[in-house]
Amino acid sequence: MKIHGNPHRTIETDAAENVRILDQTLLPHDVVWRTMTTWQDASKAISIMQVRGAPLIGVTAAFGVALAMRDDASDTSLDTVCKSLFATRPTAVNLRWGLDRMKAALGSLPSRERAAAAWSEAVQIADEDVRTNESIGRNGHELFQRIFEQKAASSGPLNVMTHCNAGWLAAVDWGMSLSPVYQAHDAGMPVHVWVSETRPRNQGAALTAFELNQHGVPHTLISDNAAGHLMQRGLVDLCITGADRVTASGDVANKIGTYLKALAAKANNVPFYVAVPVSTIDWTISDGVRDIPIEQRSSREVTHIPGRNSVGAQEEVLICPENTPARNDAFDVTPAALVSALITEHAVVDCSAEGLLVLKPA
Amino acid sequence: MKIHGNPHRTIETDAAENVRILDQTLLPHDVVWRTMTTWQDASKAISIMQVRGAPLIGVTAAFGVALAMRDDASDTSLDTVCKSLFATRPTAVNLRWGLDRMKAALGSLPSRERAAAAWSEAVQIADEDVRTNESIGRNGHELFQRIFEQKAASSGPLNVMTHCNAGWLAAVDWGMSLSPVYQAHDAGMPVHVWVSETRPRNQGAALTAFELNQHGVPHTLISDNAAGHLMQRGLVDLCITGADRVTASGDVANKIGTYLKALAAKANNVPFYVAVPVSTIDWTISDGVRDIPIEQRSSREVTHIPGRNSVGAQEEVLICPENTPARNDAFDVTPAALVSALITEHAVVDCSAEGLLVLKPA
Repeated sequence: MKIHGNPHRTIETDAAENVRILDQTLLPHDVVWRTMTTWQDASKAISIMQVRGAPLIGVTAAFGVALAMRDDASDTSLDTVCKSLFATRPTAVNLRWGLDRMKAALGSLPSRERAAAAWSEAVQIADEDVRTNESIGRNGHELFQRIFEQKAASSGPLNVMTHCNAGWLAAVDWGMSLSPVYQAHDAGMPVHVWVSETRPRNQGAALTAFELNQHGVPHTLISDNAAGHLMQRGLVDLCITGADRVTASGDVANKIGTYLKALAAKANNVPFYVAVPVSTIDWTISDGVRDIPIEQRSSREVTHIPGRNSVGAQEEVLICPENTPARNDAFDVTPAALVSALITEHAVVDCSAEGLLVLKPA
Repeated sequence: MKIHGNPHRTIETDAAENVRILDQTLLPHDVVWRTMTTWQDASKAISIMQVRGAPLIGVTAAFGVALAMRDDASDTSLDTVCKSLFATRPTAVNLRWGLDRMKAALGSLPSRERAAAAWSEAVQIADEDVRTNESIGRNGHELFQRIFEQKAASSGPLNVMTHCNAGWLAAVDWGMSLSPVYQAHDAGMPVHVWVSETRPRNQGAALTAFELNQHGVPHTLISDNAAGHLMQRGLVDLCITGADRVTASGDVANKIGTYLKALAAKANNVPFYVAVPVSTIDWTISDGVRDIPIEQRSSREVTHIPGRNSVGAQEEVLICPENTPARNDAFDVTPAALVSALITEHAVVDCSAEGLLVLKPA
């Protein structure tokens, strides 16, 4: 998608086999690209969240392995680097997947061939991520088209509400929940996005607003509290979010606050979609509320808010009395019954145990 | 309630007939009292929100009239001052009520008697507000007691979730939704309050956390997004909020985000109470979604967040790309069917057209 009018990926390579990332810790206020030259650069980028979003973390780790193989392509090096990279964000499913795939591709090769093979495998993982998300977008776009056609011609653009950031900044390109938005917009459909700020980390305000703005998609920032009210007033045609994990029965773990939006959507007959690659489905568990552990994060994310101050510097402000106790659950679980459909790269399916079966790997 | 261990009201008088207010624009970071000596001081305090909350605005305006009568007790002065004070926050129901009451008490008196009568009437309005909210607290406390007795003895304190600030800072003392909390706490019941930060103005983080902390009531700050998750996990025994307006059929207009909490409470069988003085009921309207106009406030409240920076100064930070369009609906409407009961100074009633009838003035 576009930044300053030019198409970009979140992680980019060139013919000379350089790799660089967009530093997301400085968004939305500063656009800074960082070249990675060692696997330690990749490790740091993941751990301090210069890159974030499950797909992008996996791809960054793969390039980390490729960089390591240039310096030392021994078995020991391969093992050590994969272990270290995995330790940066131990709960990210795609991180393990990306590293396992690199090990499988390289393990049986003689070490002199590993550097070239690793680079080519990392590039391939990135390209596949783009294709997967492009397919999610195509499937979602068809759904958007049907809903848009049912709207009265006079009632303005298709109003899409999203939560957090499952856009292209969370992947290599296109994104998950925003991929259908970009495809609809690029195809000429009038689309408008309600961007929920997504406290406590404000990924909606900082990242989703940034990427929609840069690509030229009309959008409006709202506080998370406004979601129900806008649906009640008929100002939302559909909701669409990503997910961190989907159970075999269709329960959805996603950024805290997703559940409240899903409840409001149900109460107001607004369709609520979840857009994910099939790899997000965890076939080993069924009951999301019972089986998905919810990460507890620092209370400082609740008590302090970062942003840009009046002199243009990035700064954090305290919003409550000092030492106020705070609780910070990072995710919540939306029961399958509140989800209208799951949009994947293969198909749009009922978000239920039966509906998901067609997606299950043999 | 207490600040720094001493009992206080939000607006205080002494034997020498001085009147001072707690400047709420500086909370929670600084406790500053401001003496009002002219009616213009009262006008400014209301318009720049040094005082806020419907009951407190009405009382402050009454003292403004009393201060004006000291300088000029003519009919012209009385009229002009009431008109000017009313213009500060034209939508606040209690502001009109307080001013109308002052005019009724003073209009027929000779001007030489007005200064003394105005002071005495303003003091009486403040005292009545305290008694009203104390009664709301007593009625709510009984309800809390019943719910607490049904809890397993081992399951900890009564977990109360609130939204925004309808505490003593919004009134003269006790508050509305927090009055039962203070009475339960003071009577020895173990109570714990989930404080929602209440974006965009953060009255939960700034004011509710401040007043609970100062009075010693255990509490935990959460982002608004966490409300549904905590209810789903059985961590909330009841919700209680105030209201800006209640229709004759029991629909409730309150701070944006109240509706989302009410939906989550219904979905998880958590009782959802609204605590208000009977004067909050607007008997002239029935359908809240249709009939209650929703105030649109500045988009800057969504795009910028104030707080205390790392060197202790109050500062605002931008949380999104510059010039991001934002929408800021200040209130939402919770349909009566989602409200378990209305707690008033006279009685706890069903939140329905039939239930409210017993509260209707003859």
